[in-house]
Amino acid sequence: MKILGIDGSGLVASVAIVEDDNLVGEYTTGYKKTHSQTLLPMLDELSKMVELDLNSIDGIAVAAGPGSFTGLRIASATAKGLGLSLGCPIISVPTVDAIAFNLWGAKGIICPILDARRGQVYTGLYSFTDEGEFQVLKPQVAVDFREFAEEINNSNGPVTFLGDGVPVFKELIAELIQVPYRFAPAHLNRQHASSVATLGSIYYRQGECETAAEHRPEYLRLSQAERERLEKEKKA
Amino acid sequence: MKILGIDGSGLVASVAIVEDDNLVGEYTTGYKKTHSQTLLPMLDELSKMVELDLNSIDGIAVAAGPGSFTGLRIASATAKGLGLSLGCPIISVPTVDAIAFNLWGAKGIICPILDARRGQVYTGLYSFTDEGEFQVLKPQVAVDFREFAEEINNSNGPVTFLGDGVPVFKELIAELIQVPYRFAPAHLNRQHASSVATLGSIYYRQGECETAAEHRPEYLRLSQAERERLEKEKKA
Repeated sequence: MKILGIDGSGLVASVAIVEDDNLVGEYTTGYKKTHSQTLLPMLDELSKMVELDLNSIDGIAVAAGPGSFTGLRIASATAKGLGLSLGCPIISVPTVDAIAFNLWGAKGIICPILDARRGQVYTGLYSFTDEGEFQVLKPQVAVDFREFAEEINNSNGPVTFLGDGVPVFKELIAELIQVPYRFAPAHLNRQHASSVATLGSIYYRQGECETAAEHRPEYLRLSQAERERLEKEKKA
Repeated sequence: MKILGIDGSGLVASVAIVEDDNLVGEYTTGYKKTHSQTLLPMLDELSKMVELDLNSIDGIAVAAGPGSFTGLRIASATAKGLGLSLGCPIISVPTVDAIAFNLWGAKGIICPILDARRGQVYTGLYSFTDEGEFQVLKPQVAVDFREFAEEINNSNGPVTFLGDGVPVFKELIAELIQVPYRFAPAHLNRQHASSVATLGSIYYRQGECETAAEHRPEYLRLSQAERERLEKEKKA
């Protein structure tokens, strides 16, 4: 079973191919270029390097959100386009789950935090059983970090924080978090398409797929334009 | 601080750039091409994608062995060539340590096993403290797997196996290992240059560097040619 993974939910652009227990290839960049300049060229380059026949792909796993609205749209549009032309299903992987899955087998609680602006984070709480099974303790949500800190303090700790919200909320973490905590290191603390593809493989085996036509990103919040329109309508 | 990571110790070819707490980019392929066809083109491609000025690199971390003799020589030669021309130091990262470091923060004992042929494995035992500090419980060694199984059974378990020796020694693991064990999933079970670079960054800060001229791969065993010559000399 061969799964293509795509993640464009944050600053990071990442593509990967996972076949059963093997990572065939992964290409990840955390750079200021827009994903429309990176994702498809990276996939093209990786495919050539590993002589991938795109028709051999069984499914496309995409970090479906939350995250950067533009990034999600580019990644999902890429997945939809490929899925439609190849006739293969899409596996929507929750962005926050996929980032937590970087830390497979980790001790304690895993808490990705992605900067959602306006004081909010996209976050969730996760852990692994002794057998390495992934557990979603608190599904991904858009929330005020001060509010979520209580949930973290009620967990069993130690907590590992990761994601692009870490540098933004580091001071607030120091102020509010009362359980032991630590930060994931550079090689695991941001999006990796290999995590999306590996987690996507599990969902695929469970039949959790959708058609390319059905697939939509999951923003978790209204976009700025939608929010402003609603506020205007309310006032009027 | 910017560290370039290179791993060619096994089937996998991987290059990565880590800057402080950020993965600037990583390109990994697990494919049957020889590393002389992949490592430098991948580094070139990645450098262009993230607009890397090679002169901004502070050090080159390389998986220095053990592993495939040819792969190690290609990776070390690449590191030496770059190090000499850029005038920057080399950080020799033990291959088995770097693979264990993929599972940062994991519960229990981490046991990478790399197929060393002739019934032997390159292996070691590792763990992480609750604070996420990396501990080398048993440094990397070339050993008969049946012999090493005893050491594993004397550990506190659960043990996580990973590395290209897993498919080769899976039956022997089932036969010999008496502590609870599990296998790392696809996104983390082989070499990653981002692990080499992140672990290399720690060594770099501790001053554990060498010059490009000094650097040599660490084979841990004699090559087939050296072994056969020795045997011939013994007989004569």
